[in-house]
Amino acid sequence: MYEQLKERVCRANLELVGHKLVIFTWGNVSGIDRQAKVVAIKPSGVDYNELTADKIVILGLEGNIIDGDFRPSSDTPTHLELYRSFTEIGAICHTHSQYAAMWAQAEREIPCFGTTHADYFYGPIPVTEVMTKDEIQNNYELNTGKVIARRFKGIDPLQMPAVLVANHGSFTWGKDSTQAVSSAIVLEQVAKMAYGTVRLNPQQNAISQSLLDKHYLRKHGKNAYYGQT
Amino acid sequence: MYEQLKERVCRANLELVGHKLVIFTWGNVSGIDRQAKVVAIKPSGVDYNELTADKIVILGLEGNIIDGDFRPSSDTPTHLELYRSFTEIGAICHTHSQYAAMWAQAEREIPCFGTTHADYFYGPIPVTEVMTKDEIQNNYELNTGKVIARRFKGIDPLQMPAVLVANHGSFTWGKDSTQAVSSAIVLEQVAKMAYGTVRLNPQQNAISQSLLDKHYLRKHGKNAYYGQT
Amino acid sequence: MYEQLKERVCRANLELVGHKLVIFTWGNVSGIDRQAKVVAIKPSGVDYNELTADKIVILGLEGNIIDGDFRPSSDTPTHLELYRSFTEIGAICHTHSQYAAMWAQAEREIPCFGTTHADYFYGPIPVTEVMTKDEIQNNYELNTGKVIARRFKGIDPLQMPAVLVANHGSFTWGKDSTQAVSSAIVLEQVAKMAYGTVRLNPQQNAISQSLLDKHYLRKHGKNAYYGQT
Amino acid sequence: MYEQLKERVCRANLELVGHKLVIFTWGNVSGIDRQAKVVAIKPSGVDYNELTADKIVILGLEGNIIDGDFRPSSDTPTHLELYRSFTEIGAICHTHSQYAAMWAQAEREIPCFGTTHADYFYGPIPVTEVMTKDEIQNNYELNTGKVIARRFKGIDPLQMPAVLVANHGSFTWGKDSTQAVSSAIVLEQVAKMAYGTVRLNPQQNAISQSLLDKHYLRKHGKNAYYGQT
Repeated sequence: MYEQLKERVCRANLELVGHKLVIFTWGNVSGIDRQAKVVAIKPSGVDYNELTADKIVILGLEGNIIDGDFRPSSDTPTHLELYRSFTEIGAICHTHSQYAAMWAQAEREIPCFGTTHADYFYGPIPVTEVMTKDEIQNNYELNTGKVIARRFKGIDPLQMPAVLVANHGSFTWGKDSTQAVSSAIVLEQVAKMAYGTVRLNPQQNAISQSLLDKHYLRKHGKNAYYGQT
Repeated sequence: MYEQLKERVCRANLELVGHKLVIFTWGNVSGIDRQAKVVAIKPSGVDYNELTADKIVILGLEGNIIDGDFRPSSDTPTHLELYRSFTEIGAICHTHSQYAAMWAQAEREIPCFGTTHADYFYGPIPVTEVMTKDEIQNNYELNTGKVIARRFKGIDPLQMPAVLVANHGSFTWGKDSTQAVSSAIVLEQVAKMAYGTVRLNPQQNAISQSLLDKHYLRKHGKNAYYGQT
Repeated sequence: MYEQLKERVCRANLELVGHKLVIFTWGNVSGIDRQAKVVAIKPSGVDYNELTADKIVILGLEGNIIDGDFRPSSDTPTHLELYRSFTEIGAICHTHSQYAAMWAQAEREIPCFGTTHADYFYGPIPVTEVMTKDEIQNNYELNTGKVIARRFKGIDPLQMPAVLVANHGSFTWGKDSTQAVSSAIVLEQVAKMAYGTVRLNPQQNAISQSLLDKHYLRKHGKNAYYGQT
Repeated sequence: MYEQLKERVCRANLELVGHKLVIFTWGNVSGIDRQAKVVAIKPSGVDYNELTADKIVILGLEGNIIDGDFRPSSDTPTHLELYRSFTEIGAICHTHSQYAAMWAQAEREIPCFGTTHADYFYGPIPVTEVMTKDEIQNNYELNTGKVIARRFKGIDPLQMPAVLVANHGSFTWGKDSTQAVSSAIVLEQVAKMAYGTVRLNPQQNAISQSLLDKHYLRKHGKNAYYGQT
């Protein structure tokens, strides 16, 4: 009964591998059906080569297993917290992609240095606070979601569909799994370009608000004029 | 009636993907038929996997659509301005390729550090000025063309078939689409080599005028002696 | 009679090539059968394209050839010393993979900068001391094993399945060849991420003990809750 | 009559492409038959996709064309000068491979930072002097050979089968075309590893003479014990 959702979530997980954003089992994608109040997520530690739609786990919003023979991703509580906090998102992606992870490990947000970034992310990519000992030792995965949500006070998650979790990697999201995966792909590109930019010009500032507005808004929002629609 | 032009422009767009200079819809190639006074350009936001010659848009030099069912690339006014300003070029390429974008985002021109560069570009790759708020807010894409043309005062665009647009990416061009694509490929290689060069030797200067002349002129101009013709 | 062991060791050697951790003959994998008291190892200088299970050499623990028509890897004495010193490991991998080699050549241990690292290695990746003239000139390969073993005083090799040999490359290991190869793959990823991390934040410290414990122990040890078992 | 030589030289040229050391027409390999006193070399500016053995040009040692319908590589005088100066080499490779070119452009020799380097090159990879205006303007390609030969005073070219030409790229060589190509492949790897090494440890010194001797001499010379012979 959740076949289409499982299918979409499975395909999105495999796209991460195709785009070289994950190896082994280092990533996961989930999707939510807000009407049915269920989340579909990758099973924990299952090799991508053996991942098929029927192995995707279906959960209720509190994490209760509704359908599936496997244990869900150990990061499930993070995903559920994000779905509760960001009520308009439809899918979430977690990766340890190389350049995004470098910035996350360096505990630096990624400034908006150019139009590639501005076309997708409306400002600097935020980095969370380092988690406290208590947040780590008790309900770590849930707290990972909370520390992200806390960082997004005053930020619209649909205009900033990515975050760097300090010392860890990235979470990205979107209205659906296609957007969530795209955000992960673009984040990695932007992270690499920004890496080179600060090497070539350590004092470089973010682009102007006008240029950020121009590029973000020509692709997003009611006055968008990019593409065919 | 514009079949050959469409075919060439379509193929050039796909070559950018093949050479990993663009992902998603981050680039475009156009070509001009100066006798027929028409420009062929990629449709806006169309996925490269679905790009076929019949989707290429044919425009007049002022941007009026002559043939095609799709909206042209949102960067069309930039292309048209370049065709008006650089009257000898026959094709234009726009990409956000990684290393070229790093230099563009760092607002640094790429010095000519070696013969790879000198074989194709007769001097440092110029970077435009940062655009003003007014240039961004009104006719942004047209002004992108103007800011490039302004930067080329005193520079022969056929001897310098590339520019870095500050905070953005690159435009390259040539007598035809093969040259425009080649310029994009070489620019990315040269940008990567120069990146490593300034890391290894931050004080390094550009090569001598004699070496620049030797390499550029053995491949270009009336005394060229490279190749079979 | 050692067919299965040879087969496993051969396959593991070829996986290094598939994961682009070795080119030419720059690497080798061995496996031990502790009951039978034999070690299987790649033959010296044999091209990976021509490597088949029947070319794998079977040795006694003192290096005496038991089966095989080829000379064993010149690094054999290093492998044997590690099997003697680390009595719980079942396979060993040696590579000159790029980023691991950079750290080894720089004589720097790789700090644990993030959870990717913490998921596999319980602390910083150690680097050996530089070998003395005497250690190099007499029984070099045996001494390479000894210098590694010396560095591991007080470190559990199963919790730290990798080492950087100063001025050289890496050795990794595990309970079996699958783990040894995985350790090599992850080490290269971790080495690359850490490289970028110190470029972006030269003062960055290792992650907290709590985060290291959380990630390492959720995948390893008796309270692990990652995966399906 | 020179079929085998042409075949070997053609194949070696194509291997450079396969190993991603050249794009377009940025490289060339030649081979010499010292008994027949002829050199076989790639034709100038011919695309690698269209390169076949019958297009390889056969020259006398002074550059006179003996066989072939194409003009030889514009770098031919450099190759011929190297064959005259280094009387034991049998093949030469020229590339602009990325990391080797970075060091050449930075005018820095590549120190021997590790055993990967020491296995193939007996010391630092030399970089030539910058060429004078006169050397560039008159007989540039011949002088490129001379400036290399001058740099090799006191160096055995078979123990150091590579050079960086300042502001340009690399030449490598060997007893035959297989060795010349291998030297080019290894040089690129070594150049990349050394690049990372100086980033991680700017003060790092070359390895000790003992380690250099141990690794170089276990693979080369009369006491070699690496491999099967």
